[in-house]
Amino acid sequence: MHLPLLNCDIGESFGAWKMGLDAEVMPHIDCANIACGYHAGDPGSMRRTVALALEHGVRIGAHPGYPDLLGFGRRSLECSAQEVEDMLHYQVGALDGICRAQGARVSYVKPHGALYNDMMRKPEQLRAVMRAVAAYDRELPLMLLSTRDNQGALAMAAEFGLRLWFETFADRAYTPEGHLVSRQLPGAVHHDSRQVIAQALTLARGEALTASDGSALRLRADSICVHGDNPGSVEAVRQLRAALDALVPA
Amino acid sequence: MHLPLLNCDIGESFGAWKMGLDAEVMPHIDCANIACGYHAGDPGSMRRTVALALEHGVRIGAHPGYPDLLGFGRRSLECSAQEVEDMLHYQVGALDGICRAQGARVSYVKPHGALYNDMMRKPEQLRAVMRAVAAYDRELPLMLLSTRDNQGALAMAAEFGLRLWFETFADRAYTPEGHLVSRQLPGAVHHDSRQVIAQALTLARGEALTASDGSALRLRADSICVHGDNPGSVEAVRQLRAALDALVPA
Amino acid sequence: MHLPLLNCDIGESFGAWKMGLDAEVMPHIDCANIACGYHAGDPGSMRRTVALALEHGVRIGAHPGYPDLLGFGRRSLECSAQEVEDMLHYQVGALDGICRAQGARVSYVKPHGALYNDMMRKPEQLRAVMRAVAAYDRELPLMLLSTRDNQGALAMAAEFGLRLWFETFADRAYTPEGHLVSRQLPGAVHHDSRQVIAQALTLARGEALTASDGSALRLRADSICVHGDNPGSVEAVRQLRAALDALVPA
Amino acid sequence: MHLPLLNCDIGESFGAWKMGLDAEVMPHIDCANIACGYHAGDPGSMRRTVALALEHGVRIGAHPGYPDLLGFGRRSLECSAQEVEDMLHYQVGALDGICRAQGARVSYVKPHGALYNDMMRKPEQLRAVMRAVAAYDRELPLMLLSTRDNQGALAMAAEFGLRLWFETFADRAYTPEGHLVSRQLPGAVHHDSRQVIAQALTLARGEALTASDGSALRLRADSICVHGDNPGSVEAVRQLRAALDALVPA
Repeated sequence: MHLPLLNCDIGESFGAWKMGLDAEVMPHIDCANIACGYHAGDPGSMRRTVALALEHGVRIGAHPGYPDLLGFGRRSLECSAQEVEDMLHYQVGALDGICRAQGARVSYVKPHGALYNDMMRKPEQLRAVMRAVAAYDRELPLMLLSTRDNQGALAMAAEFGLRLWFETFADRAYTPEGHLVSRQLPGAVHHDSRQVIAQALTLARGEALTASDGSALRLRADSICVHGDNPGSVEAVRQLRAALDALVPA
Repeated sequence: MHLPLLNCDIGESFGAWKMGLDAEVMPHIDCANIACGYHAGDPGSMRRTVALALEHGVRIGAHPGYPDLLGFGRRSLECSAQEVEDMLHYQVGALDGICRAQGARVSYVKPHGALYNDMMRKPEQLRAVMRAVAAYDRELPLMLLSTRDNQGALAMAAEFGLRLWFETFADRAYTPEGHLVSRQLPGAVHHDSRQVIAQALTLARGEALTASDGSALRLRADSICVHGDNPGSVEAVRQLRAALDALVPA
Repeated sequence: MHLPLLNCDIGESFGAWKMGLDAEVMPHIDCANIACGYHAGDPGSMRRTVALALEHGVRIGAHPGYPDLLGFGRRSLECSAQEVEDMLHYQVGALDGICRAQGARVSYVKPHGALYNDMMRKPEQLRAVMRAVAAYDRELPLMLLSTRDNQGALAMAAEFGLRLWFETFADRAYTPEGHLVSRQLPGAVHHDSRQVIAQALTLARGEALTASDGSALRLRADSICVHGDNPGSVEAVRQLRAALDALVPA
Repeated sequence: MHLPLLNCDIGESFGAWKMGLDAEVMPHIDCANIACGYHAGDPGSMRRTVALALEHGVRIGAHPGYPDLLGFGRRSLECSAQEVEDMLHYQVGALDGICRAQGARVSYVKPHGALYNDMMRKPEQLRAVMRAVAAYDRELPLMLLSTRDNQGALAMAAEFGLRLWFETFADRAYTPEGHLVSRQLPGAVHHDSRQVIAQALTLARGEALTASDGSALRLRADSICVHGDNPGSVEAVRQLRAALDALVPA
């Protein structure tokens, strides 16, 4: 059995401003999406986060975003495909530079916030992201959102010889199309930890979820996205980790 | 005969703001010190400058600076040794990321502006820079200012197993100690191109210059720093290139 | 006769990077749209530009933009109405602070680049801009694009008790709806100075232009936007100024 | 009796990053030193902080710093006097713009962090700050550190017709010269709340403190600087407020 990797946005402090319980959540995850300085993170926080990931044997992912510290990379910025490629090379390279000084390497890429959303909405932007990652290092998987039909993304990735890691959410409701139900709507976020764990196990087993309209929804789940921003979410990750590990025969 | 390499600060545009005659000067130099986004340069300008350097077979150097676009990296910023190391890894890595997407690599490091000056004035800062470069890649030479006595720097570099490239200036007068005469003083800058070329040839032959007090000054000259900011300086570089090339038997 | 005011984007340098022939164009214009530091301009350039405007008796306008130096404020950034209001207060206030130290005041507001375009496309953004200017100082006119039908903007401004200055272009072709013909299309920009001057005089006399489909288009022209980025455009402004001044009986 | 004003650095959040218990400490202070966006604070946080100050009848002070978000304005940046003046006008003006939209005004200026320290160390920088404040609005007092001998600062202020507010610390030990004992040294910070309150009352009564060498030290105390970064410091401010208020006959 191939367990989904737990991935978590991390290293989101900036200078004197601290964010996230990085040290608490790191022991429980597989993949650390480390901010690269454009929307969060700075050279010092990146160094400390890389060291923490290495200490726990966690894969280091570049988590590039739009150049918008004030908006935390959550505001869409109208960029050309070339601008997207350039900013990815800059940010992934910067994190790789920090890694290199510790004898490590970036091992996958997951765009952040509005850059992630824009990539999922606009094929030309997804293509720019794929071209950027492939030109940087064809061996680095790109992490993106799993939907009901991942064929378009897979076909595009094949053009570039790129691997994809499809991520899912255990704490979010899905539409029948396999998109996340908007946070504006009731029931969008699962607050009951048993429900979160049940959904994670369903995803891990490759079984179908029940979408918001009651229909069955099967999602490829190479990874599950978790959160480390507060004690409650860290505890949820700890439980999720334990539940997933229990799936595997000792 | 081992000619000194001509190095030039380049890629100093930022977004819509253009600076320097990069395309004009690139054909005549050996080493391009490319700004890495902290004091000048942006991901797009870095990509274009790397491409231009590759086109002309010019070595790509990282030219990291203090995070001060407004001051163009010319204002000293009080940083800890750790902060200096981190910002070097970030910037060198970022340029290496841009290079990598074009199948290239950063091949040396030369700090910029106030970071360069602070490194030459404060041994602990020089040590931080050396530690940073060595941790990143011991194969990358560090370019710094040649002075009458380079022993301190060489001894420090030996601790890190680091190579040094000492740079000199053909268009500047030197104090007896081998420092540049302050631009505030008369005669600090040579404006006569014959004088510039004569000084370059003297440096290339390993002969002694005449310092500002008339004393002889011998400087190790692995490289000579040139400028490409206006048509006059580009023409001076062209002439310097020709004069140096003429030193070598065909 | 009430001549349209000539307005020009100015003060667009940033630190060591120079842009625009500010000193050359200032003597010929009525209104200086001064960048406020978010997309261009810095405290020093703002001080110098304000001084230059005062020297020539030119009205000082705040030219706020999105926080995007790299993109020169030309990339749309998804902002809430509140964010737009806040960034306007910050930037207009900053320029007013610079003015105040010279005994001057900001006397109108014209948003820049993508912020300007977004304001013209989205009524809720125009409302945010109007609310921001009215809350700052109801006496400051807001400059925006004149179109065939300005009633929507005028009605909205009336809600806020705000004055509007509608600007036009003498060097651009218009669609029948009174929008600027896209620069992607042929004939979008008038390159013949006689045509530019003829269009300016038509606008100044309150007569109808000929739109791109041959139809008549009457535009309210409180102001005409001119450019000072190169010697040719400065010369065009000088000629335009002379032609307009000749309209008024001595 | 003229009680010293309690002043507190506030509004130090930036975008998604929160810092300080602004809502908790605001009810107990007289003067809010609000960050202006260069080292902390953004247009949105500035708006909210101004509103909070107005709600509690607290004086609004501009708290300008060096342009260094990453270093939180705590790293000295080598600036010319002109650069210091320009950055003060920009930042004070920006906060005044935010205030103006709420019918308020900046009522004093206190530089932040390294800018404050540099101003206290270098007379030419203090002069630049004074010139900046005087040019902006002679009615705005400048807050600076009270020392044993304030005559130099007072004489300089008299040249500019500027008022000074000397601030003191209730929780810090003083050297005989009236400087703060370095935080590196033992006993630099008073941790016992009774000691803090006793020192505040001594300052409020205009009596002499006991300096670190046992000598008597009389400090002018127009204001006392307090902190609101954690629950403990907020509680200390609450107690200090009560103790000071009890000095005044009902």
